[in-house]
Amino acid sequence: MKNIRNIHERVNLALLKTLKDARKTPTPPKLAASIDYAIFPGGARVRPNLCLSVAEACGEDDFAIAESAAVALEFIHCASLVHDDLPCFDDAELRRGKPTVHRAFGETVAVLAGDSLIILAFENLAKGCENSPQRLIQLIKILSKSSGVPFGICSGQGWESEDKINLSAYHQLKTGSLFVAATCMGAVSTGEDPEPWVELGARIGEAFQVADDLKDVTYSQKLTGKPTGQDIKNSRPSAVAEFGVDGAIKRLQDILSGAIASIPSCPGEARLCDIVRNQAKQLMPSFAADKVL
Amino acid sequence: MKNIRNIHERVNLALLKTLKDARKTPTPPKLAASIDYAIFPGGARVRPNLCLSVAEACGEDDFAIAESAAVALEFIHCASLVHDDLPCFDDAELRRGKPTVHRAFGETVAVLAGDSLIILAFENLAKGCENSPQRLIQLIKILSKSSGVPFGICSGQGWESEDKINLSAYHQLKTGSLFVAATCMGAVSTGEDPEPWVELGARIGEAFQVADDLKDVTYSQKLTGKPTGQDIKNSRPSAVAEFGVDGAIKRLQDILSGAIASIPSCPGEARLCDIVRNQAKQLMPSFAADKVL
Repeated sequence: MKNIRNIHERVNLALLKTLKDARKTPTPPKLAASIDYAIFPGGARVRPNLCLSVAEACGEDDFAIAESAAVALEFIHCASLVHDDLPCFDDAELRRGKPTVHRAFGETVAVLAGDSLIILAFENLAKGCENSPQRLIQLIKILSKSSGVPFGICSGQGWESEDKINLSAYHQLKTGSLFVAATCMGAVSTGEDPEPWVELGARIGEAFQVADDLKDVTYSQKLTGKPTGQDIKNSRPSAVAEFGVDGAIKRLQDILSGAIASIPSCPGEARLCDIVRNQAKQLMPSFAADKVL
Repeated sequence: MKNIRNIHERVNLALLKTLKDARKTPTPPKLAASIDYAIFPGGARVRPNLCLSVAEACGEDDFAIAESAAVALEFIHCASLVHDDLPCFDDAELRRGKPTVHRAFGETVAVLAGDSLIILAFENLAKGCENSPQRLIQLIKILSKSSGVPFGICSGQGWESEDKINLSAYHQLKTGSLFVAATCMGAVSTGEDPEPWVELGARIGEAFQVADDLKDVTYSQKLTGKPTGQDIKNSRPSAVAEFGVDGAIKRLQDILSGAIASIPSCPGEARLCDIVRNQAKQLMPSFAADKVL
């Protein structure tokens, strides 16, 4: 557990350091405050933690690269949440136990906060890769593929505006793609080939989505920090709607076992297995946590 | 004039080629169509034309780099227009003579089209710089600085949500910053130092904003392709409100003379002067076009 806490601290320190620039004048005060508000205090930081965990497992030779990758992942993730909460999307009131960005700062500022975070993600990557421009090219390709069109979050969100939707493609784009980016960017940050790390990210992403669907049905708003029952309310595709609660839990177990089995051979393999196992426990709804692995 | 037409064609071909990816499945059809719609048929392409003109003047050694920079500038510009037209900002009905993106495709798709274009801008830069990763770092720093916070378009737009606003800082951020990026990215694309090119971009950006303020007052909607009289309607800061129509025209002349005088010594200096002079004529309202330079 000590290691996870350290990674979490490393992520938060890197996020804080990066946002210092956004607070400088001439940033308009409301916009600067909304960007801070979208990032802090933050959720579980699953994606940047995963990125740094993989980088540490591969053996880092330049700490700045993986940290800039971790920050970029969290910025893109938070930007997608801010825009996804907007009135024209989910019109969400709460996120992480507090009013959503547009409720706290207004809709225009929320649109701009999302835009600014996307741009900051790429800017920060470039700064982190000063000494490794070749890795920057790979990192930007992975990050943009996972967040834009046709293979990333934007495509996933875009499917919500279509009449016909494919559940698994939708989840893969909207949630899975950034988890794949997290493991692959962790590997690329250390100069490793990203390909062997795709499966770990894909499986954790899939598990995360199933866990989210389960929480939406079985948890209260107090526990999740955001309104629950939204999938049914918005007629959104969901693993629970497709497989039922027990079927979804079984599916979660299978996915997580596969995730651990997929970890490639690397210097910190054993520790990374522990980290993923601990992460898995946190993903499972509490009433089923003992059934994890 | 032949040269300008060639550059314009080069820009449009590069834009088309880049958007091919966004049309691939699994891009949701409405989102893919809205991205095309935001870029084509397009406006004057002033920023990408300027970027390519500077690159040609400096002597290009790799055409893909300057083209990816030009595309990135146009994508960021169009993304900012799509978001700026949203109901929570200007609630604009028309842009370039046709319904705005959110009027044609809905608000959610418009938010995602803007996000996708920002991400595509950076993705495309990385692809264009495969053989020059060191230039990629510089290009991303310039593009992100000019589009995000604290020094870019997002900050400029953010000032519209504040009570106190500084006219010149506002224009510099919202419009000027991307023109500075255009000249500097053109230079960096060829391996040149960007610093001597800052003034040309800044002056053209300033001229463009003054010309836009003049058109908003003196032109009809039919001529500009978008509703005019918006600055007064939305109580927005404007050069015409500050200096009057004649004062604004005088200011435009001074700025453009300064722009041409600022062009650094380079292999294609004479041709670049012609291009900027021609651009200046197009910027001036028709009743004052003979007064340009």
